[in-house]
Amino acid sequence: MSALGRRTAPPAISWLMKTALSRPKLISLAAGFTDNATLPTKISRQLLNEILLSPKTGRPALQYGISAGENTLRELTATHLQKLDGGHDRAHSPERVLITGGSQQLLYMTLEALCDEGDIVLVEDPTYFVFLSILQSRNIKARGVKLEPDGVDLTHLEKILTQLQKSGELRRVKALYLVTYFQNPTGATTSLTKKHAVLKLLKKFERAAGHPLYFIEDAAYRELRFDHGEDVPTALTLPGARERVIYAGTYSKPFATGVRVGFGILPEPVYTTVLRIKGNHDFGTANLLQHLLARALATKLYDRHVAIIRKNYARKARLMQLALAKHFPANVEIWEAGGGLYFWARLPKEISTGMKSKVFQAALKADVLYVPGEICYADDSTRAKPDCEMRISFGSANEENIREGIKRLGVVLKKFV
Amino acid sequence: MSALGRRTAPPAISWLMKTALSRPKLISLAAGFTDNATLPTKISRQLLNEILLSPKTGRPALQYGISAGENTLRELTATHLQKLDGGHDRAHSPERVLITGGSQQLLYMTLEALCDEGDIVLVEDPTYFVFLSILQSRNIKARGVKLEPDGVDLTHLEKILTQLQKSGELRRVKALYLVTYFQNPTGATTSLTKKHAVLKLLKKFERAAGHPLYFIEDAAYRELRFDHGEDVPTALTLPGARERVIYAGTYSKPFATGVRVGFGILPEPVYTTVLRIKGNHDFGTANLLQHLLARALATKLYDRHVAIIRKNYARKARLMQLALAKHFPANVEIWEAGGGLYFWARLPKEISTGMKSKVFQAALKADVLYVPGEICYADDSTRAKPDCEMRISFGSANEENIREGIKRLGVVLKKFV
Repeated sequence: MSALGRRTAPPAISWLMKTALSRPKLISLAAGFTDNATLPTKISRQLLNEILLSPKTGRPALQYGISAGENTLRELTATHLQKLDGGHDRAHSPERVLITGGSQQLLYMTLEALCDEGDIVLVEDPTYFVFLSILQSRNIKARGVKLEPDGVDLTHLEKILTQLQKSGELRRVKALYLVTYFQNPTGATTSLTKKHAVLKLLKKFERAAGHPLYFIEDAAYRELRFDHGEDVPTALTLPGARERVIYAGTYSKPFATGVRVGFGILPEPVYTTVLRIKGNHDFGTANLLQHLLARALATKLYDRHVAIIRKNYARKARLMQLALAKHFPANVEIWEAGGGLYFWARLPKEISTGMKSKVFQAALKADVLYVPGEICYADDSTRAKPDCEMRISFGSANEENIREGIKRLGVVLKKFV
Repeated sequence: MSALGRRTAPPAISWLMKTALSRPKLISLAAGFTDNATLPTKISRQLLNEILLSPKTGRPALQYGISAGENTLRELTATHLQKLDGGHDRAHSPERVLITGGSQQLLYMTLEALCDEGDIVLVEDPTYFVFLSILQSRNIKARGVKLEPDGVDLTHLEKILTQLQKSGELRRVKALYLVTYFQNPTGATTSLTKKHAVLKLLKKFERAAGHPLYFIEDAAYRELRFDHGEDVPTALTLPGARERVIYAGTYSKPFATGVRVGFGILPEPVYTTVLRIKGNHDFGTANLLQHLLARALATKLYDRHVAIIRKNYARKARLMQLALAKHFPANVEIWEAGGGLYFWARLPKEISTGMKSKVFQAALKADVLYVPGEICYADDSTRAKPDCEMRISFGSANEENIREGIKRLGVVLKKFV
């Protein structure tokens, strides 16, 4: 095996999934799966029927396309983002849109394009664990930046950058990665003010770094807003963003996770490099999926579907919130989520929630599964890895399982907390 | 940009495609696109309708799956290969099947799993140019092994391995990559005898190498046989293959290139490593596509479709063959193709066919495009890169364009040859 091959660890989540499958009575609040009952079977059937009915629209959907993605979908994506950003169009031209196999593939290829072994990427503390797994496999170091409910702690970010400058490591820093909407795992959303400040801070350190410091904005959960707050514009709308922001978006989570289509909006020269890498990976994302999404967007059936799932997640989140209030010990801190798929619970510091902990084992025995917080933290030697937290998902569980799952978890926690 | 990013070259084929698009009257015999008229719009529509009609079958198709791929498709794939291999089942268990985004993605991830920078992979001379592009981007060296109409030149292969052993480079050799059926670009098919000999040769040098020497068998064109010869069994059926053969197959070319589903059959520990890498790339190939193919296989509509396209390619290939005989100069050597999408033409050695050559420019002026042979040769410093050949595809061109395209190309060649 190559060094990369040896470093690529078994994904934590696969163990969780296997565990879930082996215990049929187990309620999983672990997986980031989306809601099953609201998957758009009817809409997809209708749209695919329309596409495949005539050779004129059917054949292009079943043929190879270009690596950047289908032009109509790229245009509709630019327009869609413009609309989400309140008509702002500073950085939403279709030429900068790259269609990918989910936003995950975009993240992978972006790291291939930007980072060599030994480079450093700054991440939120905690962050999306599969991103950490990519970093590890590619021998890229992660540094965790403290996370507050409205985004990273700016003072901490500046402190880290300053330290790295002093230690001579700033030249190894290539990017800051933030999950800016209903973050995985905490549910936190980064405010526009913070995005702006982050962009300015990165800019400030660029001269010392000797190269661009990119801001990777992962907006995977953006459209899963269910509170009544307003959508926060992307970092793409900020001055100077056109050259520095890499936006990772997806249609998988809002539309259907079985239709894996994501997209990136990337500055040059990252766009060109990632496009070439995409050519080597797979030439381009399956056209059939791209045509399905393009038609869903064009007919507004996409918007209608998103409205439905938002209501549904709002109901399930509210249900979970009530259950948490009822069953969890009072000294467990719960982060508010205005969207996404997760609640984040912080236990008193002395209680471990890790896979080998008493809490996790007791939960498993009670047939309920959560994601231990520790796997969401980077291997960052500058701090101890917190292990007193848990990610709890209302994404795929139905209402009964949410109620019963939280109740079981509450019983477990009350024994330890 | 990273070193990988800087090394990843613009794909030659993208330039060819752009050129094709900019000249509306141009007849492209370059692209490896499949036949447009026989794309399975009707079958796909019917099957997707069935899948999405009931929530029971529709929802799983629109939800996340597991990284290895949908179990039914993995089972059907193992059975399908068993059938192709005449009932042989030595190495076709579903547990070893990994579903990927086309076989291209499998090749990419396999190289990630096996090779470090500076490693060596042996390839056919000439070979599939996108594979060469991956090698280059990952800083893996390629060594070309002479190709004969029934597979690699075994004497040359042994000579190269011996040389590499003497020079101390054998420890950097990780694999031999062969496109074993209707090879891209030459149309050559590797005989079972040669596969066996290749496997034994690799085995022989393993002790000196100090690690396994894998045989990557790319069978992308396998099902596009149109002569009346019998299918050659895979290397997987040979003794010892279970531990050393990495089989890359695909449903994209025989079914629909817009439904990008490929698969690998891999030995441990490569299987586990590639599976983990797949988790980092995209968690798994889009379920909707996997369910579509599983149903196509289960209902035998897949087989019926393959029978149709085989007849169609047979007709188009015959047409091209007749046109070649009629219009090409007699001293141009044409390789026989019993399947696949390509003819391979070898001009007298002194005539260059490269992108900057007079022949290529004249062809472009005559509005006909081919793939210059030179891009199918590895950067191998041990020999001069041949540049007197051309790959001519009958895949996507219709009958009229095949006739007219070869006629135009013949006129051009007669000026130079």
